[in-house]
Amino acid sequence: MARKIIVIGSGAAGMTAASTARRKDPKAEITVFTEDEHVAYSPCVIPWAIEGTVPWDDVVIHDPAFYKKNRDITVRTKTRVDSVDNKRKVVAASGGEYPYDSLIVATGGSPFVPPIPGKDLEGVFTVRTVNDGRAIQKALKGVESVVIGGAGVIGLEMALALSGMGRDVTVVEMMGQVIPRLADPDVAAPVKEYLEGKGIRFEMGAPIQAVNGKGSVESVVAGGKEFPCGMVIFATGVRANLEIPRMLELDVGHLGGVLVSPSMMPYSRGRPVENVFLAGDVVQCVSAVNGGAAMSQLGSTAVRQGIVAGSNAAGVPDSTGPVSSPWVSVLGDLQVAGAGFSESLASWYGMSTVSGKAEGHTRARYYPGGKPLTVKILADARTHRVVGAQVVSGEDATGRINWLSSAISEGVSAEEFLYRSENAYCPPTSMVRDVVLQAAEALCDKLRKVI
Amino acid sequence: MARKIIVIGSGAAGMTAASTARRKDPKAEITVFTEDEHVAYSPCVIPWAIEGTVPWDDVVIHDPAFYKKNRDITVRTKTRVDSVDNKRKVVAASGGEYPYDSLIVATGGSPFVPPIPGKDLEGVFTVRTVNDGRAIQKALKGVESVVIGGAGVIGLEMALALSGMGRDVTVVEMMGQVIPRLADPDVAAPVKEYLEGKGIRFEMGAPIQAVNGKGSVESVVAGGKEFPCGMVIFATGVRANLEIPRMLELDVGHLGGVLVSPSMMPYSRGRPVENVFLAGDVVQCVSAVNGGAAMSQLGSTAVRQGIVAGSNAAGVPDSTGPVSSPWVSVLGDLQVAGAGFSESLASWYGMSTVSGKAEGHTRARYYPGGKPLTVKILADARTHRVVGAQVVSGEDATGRINWLSSAISEGVSAEEFLYRSENAYCPPTSMVRDVVLQAAEALCDKLRKVI
Repeated sequence: MARKIIVIGSGAAGMTAASTARRKDPKAEITVFTEDEHVAYSPCVIPWAIEGTVPWDDVVIHDPAFYKKNRDITVRTKTRVDSVDNKRKVVAASGGEYPYDSLIVATGGSPFVPPIPGKDLEGVFTVRTVNDGRAIQKALKGVESVVIGGAGVIGLEMALALSGMGRDVTVVEMMGQVIPRLADPDVAAPVKEYLEGKGIRFEMGAPIQAVNGKGSVESVVAGGKEFPCGMVIFATGVRANLEIPRMLELDVGHLGGVLVSPSMMPYSRGRPVENVFLAGDVVQCVSAVNGGAAMSQLGSTAVRQGIVAGSNAAGVPDSTGPVSSPWVSVLGDLQVAGAGFSESLASWYGMSTVSGKAEGHTRARYYPGGKPLTVKILADARTHRVVGAQVVSGEDATGRINWLSSAISEGVSAEEFLYRSENAYCPPTSMVRDVVLQAAEALCDKLRKVI
Repeated sequence: MARKIIVIGSGAAGMTAASTARRKDPKAEITVFTEDEHVAYSPCVIPWAIEGTVPWDDVVIHDPAFYKKNRDITVRTKTRVDSVDNKRKVVAASGGEYPYDSLIVATGGSPFVPPIPGKDLEGVFTVRTVNDGRAIQKALKGVESVVIGGAGVIGLEMALALSGMGRDVTVVEMMGQVIPRLADPDVAAPVKEYLEGKGIRFEMGAPIQAVNGKGSVESVVAGGKEFPCGMVIFATGVRANLEIPRMLELDVGHLGGVLVSPSMMPYSRGRPVENVFLAGDVVQCVSAVNGGAAMSQLGSTAVRQGIVAGSNAAGVPDSTGPVSSPWVSVLGDLQVAGAGFSESLASWYGMSTVSGKAEGHTRARYYPGGKPLTVKILADARTHRVVGAQVVSGEDATGRINWLSSAISEGVSAEEFLYRSENAYCPPTSMVRDVVLQAAEALCDKLRKVI
C-alpha cells in the first residue's frame, strides 16, 4: 500500500518537505494542510512586493493546481487542522479524518507583538503573509507617517520600502543599535547612517509602550516619546506556532522551538516520535558554534530542514547539521550579512572573542563600479575557532558570507582558515586578495598577540 | 644589525613579499630588483586597459617613490640581476654587488610562444606587461583583423576586448573546447556560444602552425587553414622564469616550476636552502586535491605565497597550504569560474569523477535583474571527496567559487558538504536554496546510485 504522508503547513519548509517526499517516494499519497490562502511563497520578499519591485502575482510561485498536476501533491488551502492523534495516526480537519503513516509538522511561526495597549487598533500590522503585505499596501494610501517597531532586518527593509514610497518613516528599537543580536555595533552603525541618509528616522533604546488612537492608529509611544503616525508595523520577531506540537505532546526547548534530532524527528518526554518530522520556524536548532540551542527562523533554514524532513518521512534516511544561520539583507545599495555568533551573542554565552576586520572593495581598486566592502571575522579567544562573521558591502555579500558560514560550521581555527583559503581573482569581481582573506589576516595578527 | 632582504621581481608576488617583510620586520633593509619599468600591477587587467575601461595610469597602483616613502622599500626598476651567489649571499646587478641575509625570488613567468615560423614578425604580441598592453593598443590602430592563439581565459578576455573595439577577431585553439583543462566541455560550450554571439569566430582543434608575412603579419596558418590578419596575439600559457633559480641550483619540478616547502623555501639536490624563499608564477605548487604537483599561475596565488615568503624572509615563520586554485573570468555579461580538478584533469590523473549540476538564478526567480547561474560540482567516485567545481553566471560567481574552493581544500566529501552547508537568502541576492547547494544535492543523489 502506498505510504500516506501528511504535511501541516505550506511555507518553505512544508512545501519543500512535500516535494522532497514525492521525489524520494514516487508512490506516496501526499497531502498538505494549510490555513493560508497562498502556498510556497517567500515572506522575505514582502517589502519588495509592497514597493512594487516584485508583482504580487510573481510572489506566489506555484498554486495548488501546479502541485497536483506536476507533483501529485494535494494541497488543502484555508483548511485548519483541528486535531492530531498520533496513536491512531489521523489528522482531523474540516469535519473529516485523514490517516497518515508519516506526519510533517511545518507550522512555522507567528509575528510577535508586544502586549501593549492599542496593539489591536486599526492601522497596526505585522509582516508575515501575502495578505499582510497586501493589507499594508492598501492601507498605505491614506497614510503619511509610519512607525516601525523593531530595527531587525525585516523592520529595516520595510522602512526603506515605505520611505521610498514617500512615507515619513520612524523606526523605534528597544536596543541601542540596528540589527541587534545579529550584527555588531560597528557593523550596524554604517547601516543606520545609510538609512538615515535616505530620510529614515531612528529612535534607539526605545521600547514601544503603547499605540494610541480612537479606532485607528494616531500615534505610538516609545521610550517615553510620542510619535504621531497613521500606521504601525511590528517587526519584533517571530514565535514558533506550537499548537500542533502541543497536541502531539512534543518536547519544546528553552528558546521556544520544538526539539528535534538531526533527522528532524521530535521527542516526547525525551523519547523519539519516530513517524513525525518537523521543519522550519517551529523548530529549535543546534548551534554550529557551540552545540547549544539556537533559533534559526530563516527561509533557507526552512528549505534545508524541509528536504531532510521530507526525505525521512518518505523512508529515505537523511540528516542535517547544526546551524550557523547565514543571513543577508539588501537595503538599497547596501548589503549586510552575517553568520554564526555576533560579539553580543558570544558574550551572552560567556565566550571572549577576538575580531579581525578589513575594508576594501568588491572589485580591483581601479576597476570602475567597485563598491566598498567590509568584512569582520570573530574567533573564540581561547580556541581560535572562527565563530562569527559579518559583511557590509555594495555587492556580492552573499557568496562571501556562505563561504565564511562554511568555515564556522567546519569548526576550523582562524589560522587554519587562512592557511587553507584561496580566492579567485579577476579585476571586475574582486581584489587580488579578497577582503575576506584580508580580514582573516588581521584576525590572525591579533590572535598572535593574544596568546 | 638590520636584516638585509633582497627581492627579485616586482609583480604581485615580489611586491607582496616586500611589503609583508616590512610589516614583520620594521628595521629590515628591503630592496626590490626588477627588469620591468612598472611595479605592482596586475597583468590580469590588461584586456580592460586596452579597451579603455581602466586607464593605464590606474593600472599601476604604486610607483617606486610610494614604496620608498610609505614602506621604506627601495625598488630598482629596469635593473637586471646578473648573478646571485648564495654562498657569499650577494646579488650582482648594474655593476654593483648587493649583500643579503634573506633572498626572495619572485621572477614570475614569461608567455610561451610556440616555436613556429614567423613568430617574431612585427604584429605578433603576447600579453604580460603594461608595455605589452600599450604596444597592442598602439598597433591596433591600423589593424582590422586579429587572430588570437589560445582559448584560455586570457585569450577569451582579449578576444572580447578587441571585438568590442570593432576588430574582426578569430580565436584559434589546439584543443576541442574553450578554457581547456580548467573547464569541462559542458561548462565551456555556453561560454563559446556567448562569445560567438558577440561576433567572435573560433577555430577549434587547430594548433597554430605558422605566422606569414613580409616584415609584418599578414596571416596565420592554424589547423591547415589560413586566416588573414594584421595582428596575432599569443595567449598560450606562461612558463616559469628559471634563470635565477638555476643560478641558485634550485630543484625544479616536472611541471617546470621551482619546488618549495609550505614555507616557500626551495631545495637544492633535495636539501632546503634556508635563507631563500620563492613566490608566484615561478613556483610549482602542491594540489589540494591529490597532493600532487600543480601549477597555479594566478595573481591571487602569487599574493598568498608572497605573504608567506615575505614573512619567513623577515624571520617570522609562516606557511601556506596546497592549492585548489580558484579562478574567475569576466567576459562581458558572463562570469565563468572554477576550482580544483576539471573532469579532464581528474581523468589525466586516473581519477573517476561523478558530477552534480544545477541551473538556477542569482536572485529569487521572480526578483528583477536575476541572472542565470549554473553550478557543477565534481566528486571522486570512490571517496566522494569534492575535487572540483565550476560556475557560469551573470553575476556573483566569485564568492560562490571561493566557497567551493574551501570545500575542496578542506577535503570534505560531497555528503559532508551538503550536510554542513547553509546559504544566506534575500530575494535580491539569491534563491532560497542557493544553486551551489542544489548542485551538491544533485551530486549526492548521483553518488547514492554509484555505490
